[in-house]
Amino acid sequence: MHTILTNKQQKVAVIGSGAIGSYYGGRLAEAGHDVHFLMRRDYQAVRDGGLKVTSTDGDFTLSNPKIALTSKEIGPVDWVICALKATSIKDAHELLQPCVAHNTRILVLMNGLGLEEHFAGWFGPERIFGGMAFTCINRGEPGYVHHLKYGPVTLAHFRNDPVELDIASALWAQSKVTITTSPCLLRARWEKLCWNIPFSGLCVAAGGITTDRIVGDRGLRNAAQTLMEEVIVAGNIDLEAHSESARIDGAAVMQRMFALTDTMGVYRPSTMIDFVEGRVMEIEAMFGEPLRRAEVLGVNTPQLALLTAILRSLNAQR
Amino acid sequence: MHTILTNKQQKVAVIGSGAIGSYYGGRLAEAGHDVHFLMRRDYQAVRDGGLKVTSTDGDFTLSNPKIALTSKEIGPVDWVICALKATSIKDAHELLQPCVAHNTRILVLMNGLGLEEHFAGWFGPERIFGGMAFTCINRGEPGYVHHLKYGPVTLAHFRNDPVELDIASALWAQSKVTITTSPCLLRARWEKLCWNIPFSGLCVAAGGITTDRIVGDRGLRNAAQTLMEEVIVAGNIDLEAHSESARIDGAAVMQRMFALTDTMGVYRPSTMIDFVEGRVMEIEAMFGEPLRRAEVLGVNTPQLALLTAILRSLNAQR
Repeated sequence: MHTILTNKQQKVAVIGSGAIGSYYGGRLAEAGHDVHFLMRRDYQAVRDGGLKVTSTDGDFTLSNPKIALTSKEIGPVDWVICALKATSIKDAHELLQPCVAHNTRILVLMNGLGLEEHFAGWFGPERIFGGMAFTCINRGEPGYVHHLKYGPVTLAHFRNDPVELDIASALWAQSKVTITTSPCLLRARWEKLCWNIPFSGLCVAAGGITTDRIVGDRGLRNAAQTLMEEVIVAGNIDLEAHSESARIDGAAVMQRMFALTDTMGVYRPSTMIDFVEGRVMEIEAMFGEPLRRAEVLGVNTPQLALLTAILRSLNAQR
Repeated sequence: MHTILTNKQQKVAVIGSGAIGSYYGGRLAEAGHDVHFLMRRDYQAVRDGGLKVTSTDGDFTLSNPKIALTSKEIGPVDWVICALKATSIKDAHELLQPCVAHNTRILVLMNGLGLEEHFAGWFGPERIFGGMAFTCINRGEPGYVHHLKYGPVTLAHFRNDPVELDIASALWAQSKVTITTSPCLLRARWEKLCWNIPFSGLCVAAGGITTDRIVGDRGLRNAAQTLMEEVIVAGNIDLEAHSESARIDGAAVMQRMFALTDTMGVYRPSTMIDFVEGRVMEIEAMFGEPLRRAEVLGVNTPQLALLTAILRSLNAQR
């Protein structure tokens, strides 16, 4: 019934054209949408040589993508894809504003908990979606993006409206991106944290190691498991506190996350890459906010508290 | 009644003349004992220029200390002070052997839990003592040792024999070292861990920071406190399992450790110094063995488990 949108070209603004924004925006452009990239670092390189993507799902080049240095140049769009780092959340309102008209929808394609609340507060909740990208994508030289592994995106609507969710899925219908949907954004965010907190967290805290080192070490594997248990408990209590009927199926998620990671090979989570390359990490959205909620809700999460304190300290030394 | 020993010169072998061995052995030599240092790194420098100690308790120089490259050159002594790093415990038997006669006593002036058991197994339990040094001493250039802060040593006997403990104290009577004694070695070791595990552990895991950063940060301070609670619980159950009547007074230890650390200033624990200078850290004796005991005893120590897994991983990257 909403397939009418499937074939209609949409005007899309990608706010934050790092690895994630460039890749997924690039896939939408490849699918025929009118995609505009807000770019900083790579602006000159992409203007001169295009956007070049190597990908396990097929390399592609956008020879002459629409790029902009300011959101005002882009103007109002059908879809904003916000792919800023969570550490730049304070800049998001100003950066998105010129692209948002009354019928604009916003996909928050970022890591962490509670980011959509900011966008809902600024622009109203009905137009806000969360996107959880399960993928490994790195920036290369300016103008280059390397999609190394995975790639599916889970979409959810801020108000969990199934009609809106269909509309969001339709945007991607002609693209090479595998889309799944979740009936509950908050649960989907917590489920993503069930991976990110133990695995991204330990990959950093244990010295900048890859995920295979965690699942292959008895102590780190156990720590990942008990951390995940804490996240599951905190997530379900947070879902209850938000009057959501959905719950995380702890046993299933645990099984799935470890099965996934056991076959992941030598994987470098983006937070670990930020760490080893000396950049500020997305600690508050990914660890601080879950911990804050656990504390407010009276959930005992000793390992999450310890890990977060360590990661905050490491981040303060960036 | 044992004061007869106080004024009698003792022959002492210092096995492991790093910062701790050189400093405390130096204080015994200064007090008139016949101290022999087993030396490697600094042998040439000390032979040429003596052992030079800067100290908050008064600088001193041993112009012509007795130094040796092998234990055999030293031969049997009254006291062995073993100040090897815990990571060298496997070498201790062979290094001590030539210095140990039937009446030799051995002071294990090392960090960690369970080290005295090794010495008791090799040489018999009656002659074994543990020494817990509360101090900050660094090596400087070859031949130099810098005693920066604190300095008291707590002594305990492996069999908790009070007569033996008096004899051990008497060795230090004329020295500038402040000696306290503990009626229970196992409790004294666990009490030292109440400081080392949270503070040395977090100084490393949080990126090579000083103790003031831990007590001054809400998250790290809380983590230190909950870690210390785990250590106290595990320690008391371990004391019970060893049929010791002594217990750690948790509230008092907690209060004391934080009061101490709150006034410690910008302090660099030796394990943190090892970490930032790229050396292997004493993780197994200080974290691994306490965790192993907690696991065997069925004590739930999630933060200790997480911290130990992180530290082991960091150590494996040395």
